[in-house]
Amino acid sequence: MLWTIHAAAEALRSGRLTPRQLLEACFEQIERHESRVRAWVFVDRELAIQQAEAATAELRQGHWRGPLHGIPLGIKDIFDVFDWPTAAGSPLWSRSIARRDAIVVERLRQAGAVLMGKTVTTQYASFDPSPTRNPWNSARTPGGSSSGSAAALACGMCLGALGSQTGGSITRPASYCGVAGCKPTYGRVSAAGVVPLAFSMDHPGPMAGCVHDLATMLQVIGGPDPRDTTCTTLPMPDLLARLDLPRQPPRLGRLRGLFQDLAQPAVQSMMDAVSSRLAEQRAVMQEVTLPAGFAQVLDCHRKVMAVEAASFHGPRLKRHPEDYQPKIRTLLEEGLACPAPEYTRCKEHQAQLRAAMETCFGDLDALLTPATTGPAPDLSTTGDPAFNSPWSYTGLPTVCLPTARSPDGLPLAIQLVGRPWDEGRLLATAAWCERVLAWTRTEPPTN
Amino acid sequence: MLWTIHAAAEALRSGRLTPRQLLEACFEQIERHESRVRAWVFVDRELAIQQAEAATAELRQGHWRGPLHGIPLGIKDIFDVFDWPTAAGSPLWSRSIARRDAIVVERLRQAGAVLMGKTVTTQYASFDPSPTRNPWNSARTPGGSSSGSAAALACGMCLGALGSQTGGSITRPASYCGVAGCKPTYGRVSAAGVVPLAFSMDHPGPMAGCVHDLATMLQVIGGPDPRDTTCTTLPMPDLLARLDLPRQPPRLGRLRGLFQDLAQPAVQSMMDAVSSRLAEQRAVMQEVTLPAGFAQVLDCHRKVMAVEAASFHGPRLKRHPEDYQPKIRTLLEEGLACPAPEYTRCKEHQAQLRAAMETCFGDLDALLTPATTGPAPDLSTTGDPAFNSPWSYTGLPTVCLPTARSPDGLPLAIQLVGRPWDEGRLLATAAWCERVLAWTRTEPPTN
Repeated sequence: MLWTIHAAAEALRSGRLTPRQLLEACFEQIERHESRVRAWVFVDRELAIQQAEAATAELRQGHWRGPLHGIPLGIKDIFDVFDWPTAAGSPLWSRSIARRDAIVVERLRQAGAVLMGKTVTTQYASFDPSPTRNPWNSARTPGGSSSGSAAALACGMCLGALGSQTGGSITRPASYCGVAGCKPTYGRVSAAGVVPLAFSMDHPGPMAGCVHDLATMLQVIGGPDPRDTTCTTLPMPDLLARLDLPRQPPRLGRLRGLFQDLAQPAVQSMMDAVSSRLAEQRAVMQEVTLPAGFAQVLDCHRKVMAVEAASFHGPRLKRHPEDYQPKIRTLLEEGLACPAPEYTRCKEHQAQLRAAMETCFGDLDALLTPATTGPAPDLSTTGDPAFNSPWSYTGLPTVCLPTARSPDGLPLAIQLVGRPWDEGRLLATAAWCERVLAWTRTEPPTN
Repeated sequence: MLWTIHAAAEALRSGRLTPRQLLEACFEQIERHESRVRAWVFVDRELAIQQAEAATAELRQGHWRGPLHGIPLGIKDIFDVFDWPTAAGSPLWSRSIARRDAIVVERLRQAGAVLMGKTVTTQYASFDPSPTRNPWNSARTPGGSSSGSAAALACGMCLGALGSQTGGSITRPASYCGVAGCKPTYGRVSAAGVVPLAFSMDHPGPMAGCVHDLATMLQVIGGPDPRDTTCTTLPMPDLLARLDLPRQPPRLGRLRGLFQDLAQPAVQSMMDAVSSRLAEQRAVMQEVTLPAGFAQVLDCHRKVMAVEAASFHGPRLKRHPEDYQPKIRTLLEEGLACPAPEYTRCKEHQAQLRAAMETCFGDLDALLTPATTGPAPDLSTTGDPAFNSPWSYTGLPTVCLPTARSPDGLPLAIQLVGRPWDEGRLLATAAWCERVLAWTRTEPPTN
């Protein structure tokens, strides 16, 4: 059985299920799938059991901390967790013990979540494929960089997981593995205690089994943090209250240009089927023209990522060239070689495009795009992030929602893009689509 | 030859000496003393040479960053230095690579200092003796917790070093090894990126060969830091300008009570000799009565330290009891067992005593006390911090200044205590005393 956080929380609160039982169910899924999927850097069974026992005791005493109380989670291995190593895919960091929780981890812990272990990331959250396999087909990539979080969720090894996205690192693995993911607005979630890749585009965010679970996690991890100067001072809206409101069919925008061209036939027909179904249910579908600057978005995104990654990794690359896998090394070398004025021009473009995107929305609730260009490709790549990088670049929030399977049995997903700071409306729109599309999650085969 | 930062900076600026030559001189001192003294966790020769070469090149081009440009420093191994491990004396942390410089390290680097390596700390900056030996007598303690910083300085292996004090961890090793040390006002220097021991009493601070060098280092490392919420927003005063002003003989207070009783005969006669000499030079010496609450200061200090240390280390102690050496383990167990109201009563006492101390000062420039109860004791202890803990507890700034040798040839030192936030006056007073007392630093024997 694949638990959602939502269903498990009700069962835990009512006493029909204990955190310890739920954790054991996750351990069973690890037993079934992990040797094939390799989603975890490590699972700290002993500590997870201790946390589950503590949650069990609190719940018995009638102290319910909220919907994450007793929920087993996976933590992508770029987030610091007190007393666990943060390796970020680097052998040199494999014993780098964190002295302090990342803020988002601290918040999850306070909410009573059970931290199970660290999930595999591509090295430094970049593009070099990780050892993790796609749960639906071991010859395919799970996507990256949040490879382990997506794969673990797909197999029911945990009920939610932390991911992060600088290009397509939440949406792509979520889409390829058939789970939900949310990249919040840039600055919504603190990155303090998280290994940086490109500071102006790094987005920590939740991954889970359904839209409601994304909202539950984002509600806990989001909001102001004085430790991270890039983090907003805007208070966190009540996302769950918004989800519970009765809702009219949403107004959705479909993008013209760039996007259609890159989508493979399986994705195009999925999008047609999804659009028809949504329209049948009286969603308003409207064509949207992208702002003029959009044509440069992928080039500029690459350049900003290269330069900002090099500002952090550059000095290390010189001292430990052997530590860097080929794709991130190429990225860093690009960044180191980039003249500063080229970077500042991209930064100006980034700010202008972000502003220009706002006018695209009109009275729309969200933009609707495919989550990825196709189903998961082979293991030589983590897939094409072209449909995701523009939103990492402009900082707009997105939700990825599994909706179908490709002819060869691999998950396909839609992506909804929201207005900055309006994750409430975005998640409510995504929840409406999820209900109408009624895609049923199943467990991957074990062979 | 034992270089001061002051003398070296002039030689470097004028081109009579290059940073590379100065670094090689430090390496020679390491060659002479380190096998006996064991002041360093590691020296990163390659990286130090790179930094020295970079400084050499900049100075050749006429770009002088200031008085730390090209100066070789040691960093106590509780401060994070990018890409170096921060072990803090723990085998479990021996490969914990820092992803970011501590703020004070970042500031030293910006100032052009040459970071040589990590100096030995007692485990977690607490009381268990470290492997470092007193440079003046290998059968004696160098003091702790900043053992390696003090011992390295005494041997001329570096020209300045970072230390930190929660009880007596700067003053005591400085005194036992015969070097100068400054514990600034609590909150003057950011503790971001430093392994905490007891957050309300942790003071990063400089150690060096003379008072002027302390001022030079404090000028660079002190001042506001938004990353550390306990750090002041007060701007850093110009300490060096203050040192250069012509100066009247200071007004000094000698404490009645507690202090005299604990000092050993060698220290009492040193204090008598120092007082006579200062009075001869027309310093005003005045008796000061300690505030009523002072009698509880050592007990309360211990309790605050135990509880705050346990708030950080408690969860680790449960998981890794084998990692903790006996004295810190006892401290943590005391902290874990302490009822919270006892702690809050101590915190109230701490605040009241800090306020009460201000009235002691009257028109005095500083209080004059011995730095330690006696010369360095044997290796079973890091020495008695009784003369230092009160100032760690109340947050008042102190300077430790070597002044004499005990009959058995070990260094003795005075301690000057200043008003909160007035390190300028304190250092100027200490510089006056230093000039008048005219103690000559020598190099420890090599056998």
